[in-house]
Amino acid sequence: MIRAGIVGASGYMGGEALRVLLDHPDVEIAWATSRSPSPVEDHHPNLFGTGIEFIHPDDAGPCDVVFLALPTAASIESARRFVDGGAKVIDLGSAFRLHDRSVWERVYGQPHTDWELAERAVYGLNELHAAEIAAADVVANPGCFSSAAILAYAPLIKEGFIRPDELVVSGLSGTAGAGAELARAAHHPEIGNNIVAYNAVDHRHTYEMEQELTALAGSRVRVHFTPVYVPITRGILDLCSGFLTRPAMRSQLLELFRDFYADAPFVAAYDLDKEEGASWQYRPYPWVSAVAGTNYCQIGIDVDEARGRVVVLCALDSVGKGGAQVGVENMNLMFDLPRTAGLTRRGAHPN
Amino acid sequence: MIRAGIVGASGYMGGEALRVLLDHPDVEIAWATSRSPSPVEDHHPNLFGTGIEFIHPDDAGPCDVVFLALPTAASIESARRFVDGGAKVIDLGSAFRLHDRSVWERVYGQPHTDWELAERAVYGLNELHAAEIAAADVVANPGCFSSAAILAYAPLIKEGFIRPDELVVSGLSGTAGAGAELARAAHHPEIGNNIVAYNAVDHRHTYEMEQELTALAGSRVRVHFTPVYVPITRGILDLCSGFLTRPAMRSQLLELFRDFYADAPFVAAYDLDKEEGASWQYRPYPWVSAVAGTNYCQIGIDVDEARGRVVVLCALDSVGKGGAQVGVENMNLMFDLPRTAGLTRRGAHPN
Amino acid sequence: MIRAGIVGASGYMGGEALRVLLDHPDVEIAWATSRSPSPVEDHHPNLFGTGIEFIHPDDAGPCDVVFLALPTAASIESARRFVDGGAKVIDLGSAFRLHDRSVWERVYGQPHTDWELAERAVYGLNELHAAEIAAADVVANPGCFSSAAILAYAPLIKEGFIRPDELVVSGLSGTAGAGAELARAAHHPEIGNNIVAYNAVDHRHTYEMEQELTALAGSRVRVHFTPVYVPITRGILDLCSGFLTRPAMRSQLLELFRDFYADAPFVAAYDLDKEEGASWQYRPYPWVSAVAGTNYCQIGIDVDEARGRVVVLCALDSVGKGGAQVGVENMNLMFDLPRTAGLTRRGAHPN
Amino acid sequence: MIRAGIVGASGYMGGEALRVLLDHPDVEIAWATSRSPSPVEDHHPNLFGTGIEFIHPDDAGPCDVVFLALPTAASIESARRFVDGGAKVIDLGSAFRLHDRSVWERVYGQPHTDWELAERAVYGLNELHAAEIAAADVVANPGCFSSAAILAYAPLIKEGFIRPDELVVSGLSGTAGAGAELARAAHHPEIGNNIVAYNAVDHRHTYEMEQELTALAGSRVRVHFTPVYVPITRGILDLCSGFLTRPAMRSQLLELFRDFYADAPFVAAYDLDKEEGASWQYRPYPWVSAVAGTNYCQIGIDVDEARGRVVVLCALDSVGKGGAQVGVENMNLMFDLPRTAGLTRRGAHPN
Repeated sequence: MIRAGIVGASGYMGGEALRVLLDHPDVEIAWATSRSPSPVEDHHPNLFGTGIEFIHPDDAGPCDVVFLALPTAASIESARRFVDGGAKVIDLGSAFRLHDRSVWERVYGQPHTDWELAERAVYGLNELHAAEIAAADVVANPGCFSSAAILAYAPLIKEGFIRPDELVVSGLSGTAGAGAELARAAHHPEIGNNIVAYNAVDHRHTYEMEQELTALAGSRVRVHFTPVYVPITRGILDLCSGFLTRPAMRSQLLELFRDFYADAPFVAAYDLDKEEGASWQYRPYPWVSAVAGTNYCQIGIDVDEARGRVVVLCALDSVGKGGAQVGVENMNLMFDLPRTAGLTRRGAHPN
Repeated sequence: MIRAGIVGASGYMGGEALRVLLDHPDVEIAWATSRSPSPVEDHHPNLFGTGIEFIHPDDAGPCDVVFLALPTAASIESARRFVDGGAKVIDLGSAFRLHDRSVWERVYGQPHTDWELAERAVYGLNELHAAEIAAADVVANPGCFSSAAILAYAPLIKEGFIRPDELVVSGLSGTAGAGAELARAAHHPEIGNNIVAYNAVDHRHTYEMEQELTALAGSRVRVHFTPVYVPITRGILDLCSGFLTRPAMRSQLLELFRDFYADAPFVAAYDLDKEEGASWQYRPYPWVSAVAGTNYCQIGIDVDEARGRVVVLCALDSVGKGGAQVGVENMNLMFDLPRTAGLTRRGAHPN
Repeated sequence: MIRAGIVGASGYMGGEALRVLLDHPDVEIAWATSRSPSPVEDHHPNLFGTGIEFIHPDDAGPCDVVFLALPTAASIESARRFVDGGAKVIDLGSAFRLHDRSVWERVYGQPHTDWELAERAVYGLNELHAAEIAAADVVANPGCFSSAAILAYAPLIKEGFIRPDELVVSGLSGTAGAGAELARAAHHPEIGNNIVAYNAVDHRHTYEMEQELTALAGSRVRVHFTPVYVPITRGILDLCSGFLTRPAMRSQLLELFRDFYADAPFVAAYDLDKEEGASWQYRPYPWVSAVAGTNYCQIGIDVDEARGRVVVLCALDSVGKGGAQVGVENMNLMFDLPRTAGLTRRGAHPN
Repeated sequence: MIRAGIVGASGYMGGEALRVLLDHPDVEIAWATSRSPSPVEDHHPNLFGTGIEFIHPDDAGPCDVVFLALPTAASIESARRFVDGGAKVIDLGSAFRLHDRSVWERVYGQPHTDWELAERAVYGLNELHAAEIAAADVVANPGCFSSAAILAYAPLIKEGFIRPDELVVSGLSGTAGAGAELARAAHHPEIGNNIVAYNAVDHRHTYEMEQELTALAGSRVRVHFTPVYVPITRGILDLCSGFLTRPAMRSQLLELFRDFYADAPFVAAYDLDKEEGASWQYRPYPWVSAVAGTNYCQIGIDVDEARGRVVVLCALDSVGKGGAQVGVENMNLMFDLPRTAGLTRRGAHPN
């Protein structure tokens, strides 16, 4: 059994790691930490009766793998401590996601205190970097909006189907993405029947998207990203537009996506075909509530041939495939376990 | 491996049976039926890529256990067919829940066409009837509101702590309880920011509650039940009031509940203690979203000593512990499998 | 024009007073205060462009009527200051609602610092106390749950139709009732798809209900009240049960209610009749979303003749008819304006 | 008093016209029609007690102005009948919105049976066409998404600030926009905690946007529009991206918008400035819930100078400023009433 520790387990991301690992056939929980030690159900009512007690981070002993769910500065410090202690580290935060130090420091508004570790870290989008992740001792889990947008654009950008500097992304997110900390924009009377955009330009995740897509394109990619909170609890939908460089049909692009993700067990692509005659049509893909609580990702593709645009819709759970569950998928790769171990349970419907 | 069939798998209840059984270590899905054969994802977007195709009920072959998720009349007919074919039957509907034929026929507004089968059926609340369920070939799964209210009152009624004819229950339900069929009261613009009571008196589930609690009390019990739809997708909370026949303290009743449910792996009881000084207090029990999607049930107990009232709050998922998942728990009992097999996965938080 | 001031205008209750008074034909806003002076739209985005700037309470000058939306202790002090300055005071909080000092001090956990003022205050449920309100200089606006429950029981209790010591009330509330202050139980990821009861017994509003109904009954009334938060933004539904002292039919009780509220322009009573044959029936009364944002109240009545119970459902908006708008209705009475002035606009549908 | 009739008053759009006109100082309701005559509260519970009875369309007599809330074909026929009878007609549907017959017939999938009337109709976006509307006898009310997108782009397109063929719009809508007719995608269990895109390309409103913006630009405009349903009841947010043709600062564009809308009483523009140091920032503009139920529209502007993009967020209510209320504003113009008559009431907060 692999012994796993979770640092910062009282938040949503750490709690989700805990929930999934409790059910993982090859893992035992070594410990879970919180700055104010307490029973797990004070923070995660779903884990009542599991007997877990949060311990103080200083009391965390050695283990095989550590999941970090911490603010940026604490994450850097903690990562170093556990790596030096011989553990593999999966950082669920943003401390190690960018390869360019000056960009990181500007975007996060602070000096990076351990860039050597950042250079060792692998960007944890395993559909692109499975082999490096398997060999890594530090993995930087991607941001949720970034995961969805990169998965949506990767096949198109790699094959040059769309113009690289006019990618437009609207990221619609449930409020779990804002975390457990109280905030006016997540106060139910304010958001419960509302739609609120924020960081209309230059959101931090933009830089991850540009980094990864530029590497695939071989030339500079520009992403124009705006996030929005909508009143669902979990899950995001990225609406991704691209302008075609050459004519393409939906069926052709669908095949491209299915080839690209042939080895990805959690990514499913569909075309958004319409049935004739309905006054407004939909196909249930992607369906945010169908992937909420899971490590699955649904992608839907449509093409406006007359206007030369491709639309890719990508749904995943910011705490699941866009967060702690993809961390577990990465752990599986790092420890040579079956990639899908502990992660195949489907979400509820309705959800 | 036990071979399971699901009749009426396109609705929410049948879909949930399918989802849970897909993940059950000792079961394989023999078939799932729908009147209009189609791929599963046309109805349950969470089950995309599982390759299941619904077949017509007439094409359903023999198997070990059949879950019925059907309208009442169809359920009676179908139950007979499969029982005669040698399968055990778990009816997720209301065809076999009541022991008094004249009551059943009045409440459901139709003659019962196979009362012999109804007499063989066991009421599937396994916290009360585990042994009979294990020996049954037809199990009548309880209604969701009924499960919650009976679990909330059973220990108190059995021990005579409350007056039996003044039980008052408010049942708050998510809209999944209304089923997949379109209805104005489940139309999002109408209910999305609304609270709507219905059947203010004499709801059908009342008769199940009275039947089971009367049996426990040894004298006639009267339940005064009103259901309400609130805009959540899954889960119910029954608020159950009782008038004390003798003084009782919260701690004493908590012990009573914990003893009563000592062998019930999915029922957890708590007292609703309040912390001093907060302007409005809560403890996260029961927490509907923490049991949504699961087979767990949370019970919270409080006592108003000055006014002589006990309050029991009971949260469960109408499609899970109040529906298809408790059906799987009953199947486990009927086939001598570990009672918790396939059912221990915790719900997400947030959810 | 009547000059009105609002103290504590940055919260939801004060903001609602401001919104309604801005549209009142006979009122001008003298000032609105907040501890941190700022433009109104920093707190109430609906009032953008109205040009209102919050001032510090110390800068509030004389005016004809003052609405207080403050914590209890501040409210008492502020009320005295404005009354002494010659203004009429409408307190939207709980400082002056109870007539028994020892009960008030126990319930609110503090000594009352100006009981003389409390004795002069009139309980502001104008369906019961219109004449006293018209003559008052201090009005204590009722709590939201209390307004709904008292309106639901008053005709029945006055005429002795129900047993006075077994009134059972479930109060379902939107999160606006919790106020603008951030709280975990109003954090969207926690409550957005959840149902959470709190103060299962002995909630403060219980004492208002008992005070008013005891006065009507002429003998001691006991109310057994439990409040619950559900994920709507505004509005409450009180489910009120009573045990009949003598047989009664729905039509008879409906007539009783219509007579009782014949002069009440904002209260409408209906019977909850059911259509034959529907699998689950509803009539759109009471309909919380139909009264949200307004000063209207809908009451629905049903009788379970076999079990001897009457159910009264009462819907109103905790910030409207249960809060600031009823304050304006009281102001109309106090200044001999048309009772409905500024208050007749219907809510939206859907809402 | 102007006598107004409403055809198709049982739907959401017709019901909103009714609600607002009931409160209009210069209008009296002549009649409201529905195919199945019934009391208004069977359809609109907010209008209980108003005494309105829907009549059959054939019984509708002459009046001064008629609001049509009908399916397309019925709308064309009905418009002709009332225009010939001497009334002014405001069509809340899509029968007369497009100026190019072949485009209209392809988009709506049917021949247009009265193109002469379509040619007389004025596109009812009064911020662009106030004078023509004042002189018109048929006004074609814009689609909700179209209103928001045209208002968002008009100043930029007119002044040539953005490239005209790469306008990308994500339209986020509450479910009221889907209407009162039951549909799976508006079934609460499906959408209540979900995000669902539809018509990913080539939605009908695209053609209105292109028509109006092309007229302003003087050259062909291409709009790339995708709509999405999110679980709010009312209101939409259009996220509009444009690529700058020349450098521009936020303050400069804000001034441009304020000049452009200087005479528009219901449109307010803001810049989306960010406060330093917050981990995620927002200003409460635009705030969908603040304009829900009203005729107001909030616009927020931001510029990504490094990437050359402008973002315009536009919030309005699809049934209010994007529907029936803008119809009333147009009526005010057509009858030389004060433009804001009956429309200035602010929405609730929270809402």
